[in-house]
Amino acid sequence: MADKQYELLSEIEKENDIKKIPKEKYGQLAKEIREFLINSISETGGHLGSNLGAVELTMALHLALNLPEDKIVWDVGHQSYTHKLLTGRREGFEHLRQYGGMSGFPKRKESPCDSFDTGHSSTSISAGLGLVKARDLAGEKHTVVSVIGDGSLTGGMAYEAMNNAARMDTNFIIVLNDNNMSISENVGGVSSYLNSIRTTESYQDLKDSIYYNLIKTKKGENVAEAIRSVKSSIKHLVIPGMFFEDMGLTYLGPVDGHDIGAMTKVLAEAKRMKRGVVVHVLTQKGKGYGPAEKHPARFHGAEPFDVKTGLPKKIREKANYTDVFSTVMCKLGSEDEKIVAITAAMPDGTGLKRFHNMYPKRFFDVGIAEEHAVTFAAGMAAGGFKPVVAIYSSFLQRAYDQMIHDVCIQNMPVVFAVDRAGLVGSDGETHQGIFDLSYLSSIPNMTVMAPKNKWELSDMMKYATNFGAPIAVRYPRGQAYDGLEEFRAPIELGKAEMLYNDKDAKICLVAVGSMVETAKEVRENLMADGIACSVCNARFVKPIDEKTMLEIADNHSIIVTMEENVASGGFGEKVREVLDSGKDKRDKVTLVSVALPDTYVEHGNVAKLKSILGIDAMSIVNRIKTLINK
Amino acid sequence: MADKQYELLSEIEKENDIKKIPKEKYGQLAKEIREFLINSISETGGHLGSNLGAVELTMALHLALNLPEDKIVWDVGHQSYTHKLLTGRREGFEHLRQYGGMSGFPKRKESPCDSFDTGHSSTSISAGLGLVKARDLAGEKHTVVSVIGDGSLTGGMAYEAMNNAARMDTNFIIVLNDNNMSISENVGGVSSYLNSIRTTESYQDLKDSIYYNLIKTKKGENVAEAIRSVKSSIKHLVIPGMFFEDMGLTYLGPVDGHDIGAMTKVLAEAKRMKRGVVVHVLTQKGKGYGPAEKHPARFHGAEPFDVKTGLPKKIREKANYTDVFSTVMCKLGSEDEKIVAITAAMPDGTGLKRFHNMYPKRFFDVGIAEEHAVTFAAGMAAGGFKPVVAIYSSFLQRAYDQMIHDVCIQNMPVVFAVDRAGLVGSDGETHQGIFDLSYLSSIPNMTVMAPKNKWELSDMMKYATNFGAPIAVRYPRGQAYDGLEEFRAPIELGKAEMLYNDKDAKICLVAVGSMVETAKEVRENLMADGIACSVCNARFVKPIDEKTMLEIADNHSIIVTMEENVASGGFGEKVREVLDSGKDKRDKVTLVSVALPDTYVEHGNVAKLKSILGIDAMSIVNRIKTLINK
Repeated sequence: MADKQYELLSEIEKENDIKKIPKEKYGQLAKEIREFLINSISETGGHLGSNLGAVELTMALHLALNLPEDKIVWDVGHQSYTHKLLTGRREGFEHLRQYGGMSGFPKRKESPCDSFDTGHSSTSISAGLGLVKARDLAGEKHTVVSVIGDGSLTGGMAYEAMNNAARMDTNFIIVLNDNNMSISENVGGVSSYLNSIRTTESYQDLKDSIYYNLIKTKKGENVAEAIRSVKSSIKHLVIPGMFFEDMGLTYLGPVDGHDIGAMTKVLAEAKRMKRGVVVHVLTQKGKGYGPAEKHPARFHGAEPFDVKTGLPKKIREKANYTDVFSTVMCKLGSEDEKIVAITAAMPDGTGLKRFHNMYPKRFFDVGIAEEHAVTFAAGMAAGGFKPVVAIYSSFLQRAYDQMIHDVCIQNMPVVFAVDRAGLVGSDGETHQGIFDLSYLSSIPNMTVMAPKNKWELSDMMKYATNFGAPIAVRYPRGQAYDGLEEFRAPIELGKAEMLYNDKDAKICLVAVGSMVETAKEVRENLMADGIACSVCNARFVKPIDEKTMLEIADNHSIIVTMEENVASGGFGEKVREVLDSGKDKRDKVTLVSVALPDTYVEHGNVAKLKSILGIDAMSIVNRIKTLINK
Repeated sequence: MADKQYELLSEIEKENDIKKIPKEKYGQLAKEIREFLINSISETGGHLGSNLGAVELTMALHLALNLPEDKIVWDVGHQSYTHKLLTGRREGFEHLRQYGGMSGFPKRKESPCDSFDTGHSSTSISAGLGLVKARDLAGEKHTVVSVIGDGSLTGGMAYEAMNNAARMDTNFIIVLNDNNMSISENVGGVSSYLNSIRTTESYQDLKDSIYYNLIKTKKGENVAEAIRSVKSSIKHLVIPGMFFEDMGLTYLGPVDGHDIGAMTKVLAEAKRMKRGVVVHVLTQKGKGYGPAEKHPARFHGAEPFDVKTGLPKKIREKANYTDVFSTVMCKLGSEDEKIVAITAAMPDGTGLKRFHNMYPKRFFDVGIAEEHAVTFAAGMAAGGFKPVVAIYSSFLQRAYDQMIHDVCIQNMPVVFAVDRAGLVGSDGETHQGIFDLSYLSSIPNMTVMAPKNKWELSDMMKYATNFGAPIAVRYPRGQAYDGLEEFRAPIELGKAEMLYNDKDAKICLVAVGSMVETAKEVRENLMADGIACSVCNARFVKPIDEKTMLEIADNHSIIVTMEENVASGGFGEKVREVLDSGKDKRDKVTLVSVALPDTYVEHGNVAKLKSILGIDAMSIVNRIKTLINK
C-alpha cells in the first residue's frame, strides 16, 4: 500500500489511523488527499468540488471523533469521499460509482463508519437527531454529528429538524459546512444571512471588542446594565448566528474550514455542551484545484476530465434531453409571456439557465425547496401565469403532497418537467427516477406524458404549456434519442402513436418514452428472425389511449408494455386494466409487462443496469421468443 | 335577512360591507360573529377554536383590504369561517361541511374572495408568494396577505417560502396568527422563541426605552456609536422578531389580535413597505367561549355540542380505530422498551397522548413536520429502536420521499400507523386518505397491511412492531368495526384470510381493511337472494397473497376486489396482475375492481359519499347482480 505520491495517505488503512499522523503533517495529508481525489475522479468521474472543499473539515472530524462509535451523518453525502479515504476505502475509488463498485454516497452496508445513508438534501439533522435520541434512551455516550451544507439549509426539512433540536439538554453537533453555494449559487434570505456572518469578525473577536469593553469601561457601565436587562437581547449584539440562537441552538463560529487546528478546538468546545450546537465552518468549494474553484457547478458532479485543463475527456457530440428542454423553453418563453420557469437549486442541471438569461424576471430558483417550488407554482398559476416547474424525478417525490393538494385539487395549469426520469446510473438508489409514473398517475386531474425522442420533447413542452391544467412531461437523463424522426404526428390528449402496424404481426410493443427506442431495437431483432412486430408509442401514460389499446388487442395476440418505472402503479398495470374492461379481448391476448422490479436499483452504467434488470432490448427479445416458443 | 340576535352581522351581505359598520360597533359585530359561530357549529360541528381566535384579525383584514382584488391566503384554512361570514356566506353555515353544502375550508369555486384553496398546513406563504410574483409580473397593484398560525410555522415549507420571500423589493404581508398552539400544544425552538416575544414589550416601547435613550444620553454616546458600528447588530438589541429580520423579512409586532384598532394601524404600516413583512398578531384560540378556551384540542374540530356545557351532543358508545390504536400502543410500550412513538402535532388526534403519559421519554411530538418525523424515525431505527410513526393518510403524502429515501432504502424497522385512511367525510378533498395504498405500494421494501376490525388492528400493530422492516398499517377514521370477532387467525406475512369459502359460490369478494365489513354486508344481501358468495380478507396489500388469489380464481368465476383507495396503483391492479401471471386462470375469471374513481372527493357524510362513489354495499350488490344477469 506504500506509495510515494501518497506517502501519508497510504498509512491510513482504517478509521482512526489519521490520529497516528503527527500534527505538523496534516497539511501534507490534506494535500495528498486532494491530489488523490483529483486524479481519481478525473478517471472515474464523480463529485469533486464538494469533496475538495471538505478535506480539512473531514480530517478535523475524524481527529475529534472516535469512529465507528461516534456517528457522522453526511447531508446529501456527495462530500463523503475524504471520509471514505479515512475509513480505509481508498481502493474503492478505482470503481467509484460503477456497478458493483463503491457508492458515491455513504452506505451503511459499505462500512460501519457510515452511520446513515444519504443522497437527497436536508435529511441529516433529522437523522442525526434520531440517533441522538436513540443514544440517550439507550444510555450510551457517543457523539453524533450532522454535517450539512448551506445549500441544504434551504430545504424545509432541515429547519423542521433544527426546530426539534432546540433547547435540548443533551449534546448534538450540527456542522454547517458553508461554502456559500448550493450546486449552483445559493439563494434566499438565510443564505444572505450566512453571508453577512462570513464577513463579520468571529465570535471571540466580537466578544473582546464589544461586550467586554462595554462592561469593563466605566463610562459604559450603566448602558451595559440597561442593555443586559433587556433579557437576552445583549446576545444579539455580540454573537453572530443569533438566527440559530433564537431557534434554541447554540452557535459557534464562524471558523475557517481549512484550518484544522481551529476546527479541532471548536469541535472540542462543541462536544462539551449539553445542547444542540451549530458549528459554522467556512469552506471553499473546489478548494485547491483551480478549475473547480472557478467553475463550481461544472465540477459538482463531474464527468472524467483532463487534470491539467479541467476539460472533460469526452466531448458530448449529441444533445441530451436537458439541452432540448433548455432550447424549447427559450423558444416558448419568447412566444408566450405568461410562461415562467421554476427550479429548485438546479438552474444548470435542468437547463433553465438559458431561460434565466433571456427572461430573468420570469425565472425563479427557489433553492433546494421542492415543496415550496410546487406550491409557489400553484400560486403563480392562480395569479394567471403558466409555470413550468423543472425538477428531477427523484426529487419531485418531495412534492407529492403539494402536487395533490395545491396544484391538482385546484386544477392549476402547472407544467412539470420531470428530468432524470428512469435509470440515472452512477448516483444509484437515491437518484433513480423510477417511481414518477406511479406517483404522478395516482393524482386526479394530472396528465402524464413521455416523449420518444428529442422532437417529441419539444412538441410535448409546447403542448403542455398550452394545456391549461396540471401536466407532467417525464424524460430521461443523458443523450436525447434522435431516431424515428419521421414520426411526428401532432400531440393529441390521450392519443398514442402507432409507429409500425404490421398486418402479419402477432406481437405489439407498447412503449413509454425512452423505451420506444428500445422497442425499435426489439422490433429489428425480431424481424431479423422473421418475426413481425408492431410498435406503439404510448405518449400518454395518463389518460391512457383506451381505444388504441383495444384496437391493438383486436389485431395482436401478444402485447408487451415497456416502461422505465416500477411495475406498481405504472403503465403496464393501466394497460392491463383497459384490456380487462373488454373481457372478450383480454382473453385472446397475452400481456407481458416490461417494467422495473420492486427493488432499489444501485449505481452503475445505465446500459448495464437495464440488462441486469431485464429491460434492455436483448432481454425483451429473449422473453418474447421464449413466450412464442411455448 | 335582518335578525335581532345578529343585528350587525345581518347587514353584511357581501365583501366590504363591513366597511359600512361604524367603528364603535366593531366590538358588537365581533360578539355577534362569535355567537353565530358558536351556535352554528354547535349544530353542524366544525372547527371552532381557531375561528373564535381569528374573529377580530379577520375583521381587521377585511377593513384594511379591498376584496376580491386583494388576496388573502388562509394557511390550513380552518380559521376562515369569519372570512366566509364577511363575504356573504352566512347561509352556507346551515349545511357546513355537509355533502353539497359549504366547505369548511377556503374554496375558489365558492367565492372570488377565496384566492387559494387550502387544507394542509404551511402552504400559505408559498402560495402567497406565487400570487405576489404573478401580480408584479402582470403589473398589478393589489395586496397579498398570507395568514399563517404559529403551529403551521413548524412545517418546513413555511420556512422554505420565507427564505424565498426575503429581501424583496415588493410588498408581501405574512400575518403570523400566534395563539401559542398547534392543534395541541405547539413544540420546538421557534415556538419558544415566539413565546419569548409574547412576553417582551412591543417594538415601539423597546425603541423608546433603549435605543433612543442610548443615542440621546450624552454619556452613552460613544457606546451607541460603537454598537452601531457593528453593522446591523444594533437592531438585534431593539427589535423583537430578529429571527425574521435575519431571514430578510421585516418584522412588525407583536400586536394584540383582539384589538382591531391596533391591527388596522399595523396592517396599514405593513402595506406601505416594499418588502416581505411579518405582522406578528397574538390571539387566543377559542376566545370568547369558555369551554373552547379551556379545551383547545377538543374544540379544534368539534362534533355538534351543547352550547351551555360544551359537551358533545352524542356520546360515542363504541371505540373508534384511534382508541384501539391508542390502547394497543400502551400495551406494546409496556412489553417492549424499544418501541417509541412519533406524531406530527397530533398527540390527541392519533391517540398517542396516552402513550405519552405512560412513557414520556419514548414519545416525540415533532410539530407539523411530517418529513422530519419520518427521517427522524429512520434515525431512531438506525440507533436500535422501533419507532411507530402515527400520521394521517393525507398528511403522510408529505413524507413520500422520506419513506422511499430514508426508511426503505435502508430497510429500517419503522412502523407507519396510517390513521384516517379512506374517506374521512366532512373535511373533504384535502383530507381524504385515498392515495396511501398506491403510494405505499410503490415503495420497495415496504409492507402494507389493513385490518378488518378492531382486534385485527391490535394484532397487526403487534405484528408490525416485531417485523424488523418498514411496514404500514392503514385504518380508517371513525368507529372501529367490532364484527367478525370469530375470525382471528394469526397474522402471517403476505397471507390473506378466507372468511367464507362457499363451495357453491361463483363469486368471491376480496376486500381490504374497512371494505371487509362492506363485503360481509354484500354477501348477506346476495345470500338473501340465494346467491352464494365467498369472502376473503386481504390483510396484506403488499406483498399480495398470490397463492390465495390463484386458489380463489380456481374456485370462482367472479372476483370482486374492494378497497377504499383510488384504482391507480391500488389493490385491484395488483390482483389483476397476479391473475394474469397464470393466463389460463385469468381467462376463466371476471375481475371486478371496486375502488375510488380518479377524482377528488368532496366533503360529506362518509356513508353518503360511499354510496355516490359506488363503493357501498348496495352499489356493489347491484353491480354484481347486473354482471350475473348478463
